[in-house]
Amino acid sequence: MDGQVTFRGLPADVVIREVGPRDGLQGEEPISPQDRARLINALSKTGLLKIEAVSFVSAKAVPAMAGADEVWANVERAPNIWYSALVPNRRGAEAAVEAGGFSSLQSFLSASEAYNQKNLGKTVWESIADLAQVAAVARAAGLPVEASISSAFGDPYEGDVAPIRVLEVMRECLEAGTASISLGDTTGMATPTRVWDLVGLVREALPGVRLNMHFHDTRGTALANILAALELGVDEFDSSVGGLGGSPFAPGAHGNVATEDLVHMLTDMGIRTRVDLGKMLQAAKLAESLVGHPLASQVSKAGPRWAWASGGGVEPVPS
Amino acid sequence: MDGQVTFRGLPADVVIREVGPRDGLQGEEPISPQDRARLINALSKTGLLKIEAVSFVSAKAVPAMAGADEVWANVERAPNIWYSALVPNRRGAEAAVEAGGFSSLQSFLSASEAYNQKNLGKTVWESIADLAQVAAVARAAGLPVEASISSAFGDPYEGDVAPIRVLEVMRECLEAGTASISLGDTTGMATPTRVWDLVGLVREALPGVRLNMHFHDTRGTALANILAALELGVDEFDSSVGGLGGSPFAPGAHGNVATEDLVHMLTDMGIRTRVDLGKMLQAAKLAESLVGHPLASQVSKAGPRWAWASGGGVEPVPS
Repeated sequence: MDGQVTFRGLPADVVIREVGPRDGLQGEEPISPQDRARLINALSKTGLLKIEAVSFVSAKAVPAMAGADEVWANVERAPNIWYSALVPNRRGAEAAVEAGGFSSLQSFLSASEAYNQKNLGKTVWESIADLAQVAAVARAAGLPVEASISSAFGDPYEGDVAPIRVLEVMRECLEAGTASISLGDTTGMATPTRVWDLVGLVREALPGVRLNMHFHDTRGTALANILAALELGVDEFDSSVGGLGGSPFAPGAHGNVATEDLVHMLTDMGIRTRVDLGKMLQAAKLAESLVGHPLASQVSKAGPRWAWASGGGVEPVPS
Repeated sequence: MDGQVTFRGLPADVVIREVGPRDGLQGEEPISPQDRARLINALSKTGLLKIEAVSFVSAKAVPAMAGADEVWANVERAPNIWYSALVPNRRGAEAAVEAGGFSSLQSFLSASEAYNQKNLGKTVWESIADLAQVAAVARAAGLPVEASISSAFGDPYEGDVAPIRVLEVMRECLEAGTASISLGDTTGMATPTRVWDLVGLVREALPGVRLNMHFHDTRGTALANILAALELGVDEFDSSVGGLGGSPFAPGAHGNVATEDLVHMLTDMGIRTRVDLGKMLQAAKLAESLVGHPLASQVSKAGPRWAWASGGGVEPVPS
């Protein structure tokens, strides 16, 4: 934001990009476009500044994301929110531009060659070529493109991915016309020292590039990793309402860090997110009812610490 | 340990005190003394340096802790492990000394007057008087006493507890004969800035005092809080195998941070715990089977990152 810092040099303001309606729901059983729009509308009232809304991918390849146009038509767009659409290629970008009203397009690829080929059926180089085409469509429409680079901390096929490799892929994305970069720990393999290694390298090599970090809580480290990234000045994070989506690799393990847990921690640390936690907890309840199973978020179970901080007597659970 | 530091000044060695057999099981339905000893025996083979083994409290007040003598008699004690017994008062201390073989006694009280009275039925001052009696018994037996101070970050009765109040209670404990202090976030109300505030104050005011931190993951912040404490040089943490115990205040929320999640993060950060994660995961499986329900630990579901770090092809969950 404005570069202000707070206690121990942490950023005073943090942008949260809510990825539940796209990245989160993509990992769940499909729900209707109307319900997906309902969730986006609830999230739009929480104070969030960025929402990843839809994905213009093949309905056959990703059934949970079918009907992007219908979802988007039912979204009551808030003028101050940066809504983004995920697009895999030029065709997707054209569909998003035709739908209209997005603030940015998101392209995606992997830092891991093996993961890219397994997950997207093409080489990293082919993905970057697609990204360049997406960027051309976006430029013509006056939209910025962000590249989400997955497996930035490794994956089960290729194993560890070296920070220097991630930096190399970032450079290629920037050259292909990307305005900003999101680095994703898709597989929950990051720990704080790895965050310091990668983010330290990236910020030194590419100091002017707007960086978003996308952490999964698959091994419980998401908030610790976010703390480590904050310490290096990162001020934008992805998170998913309720922790929607789970882990794509570890059944029963957590996936995306839950937005309400992130908002809760940052708010208590004096870091401004502009998100109203009460409204976010309502959105999490809605998300839970839409997917029909309990979600991983902790604060949605325990409530915010400030509900207790004035005293008043919650009774202990009988044991 | 030896004061060595690693990356960014973090301690190179960390002691983990396993509290599952006592603090963890106390929050679960009672299981037999034989099974409790089995769990301690499994944990004793993992490389852990400290295990909170039993509690000499009234069986009527805490049914899950009944039969401490029987548990202890069935423990195959490893010579290098520091086993501790929790004792509420002089009678408890005498029982522990009579049982023999413990490396320390643990006393407990709260930083919150309201919590102390609600939970223990006495004032903080009365608890400190009890602690002095425990310390006298321990001294005569040649044992150190550690005081566990709960609600160090607040509780639902009294609300926030000021760091200066925690320091005051610490001073009283030390004066009453305590050798070391554990500060507990019993209610999951800590966040990293609060950790820096409290630990910073305590280490400045009482630099020579051995400090253990006990975090609950009730709002998802336990590992972030541990990172914050590591940054101030704290090198001993409590954790519970599998995350046994849950939250005493928030049904369905996490309680004690899970030992395997902590070991996993620290090990990957190059911080030595001496704990064998594979054996700890086996102990977590045993704990889960003993209590008969799934536990909160993430690494027990996803496995360690290094199982993926060499590649090899875990298949994604079909979505």
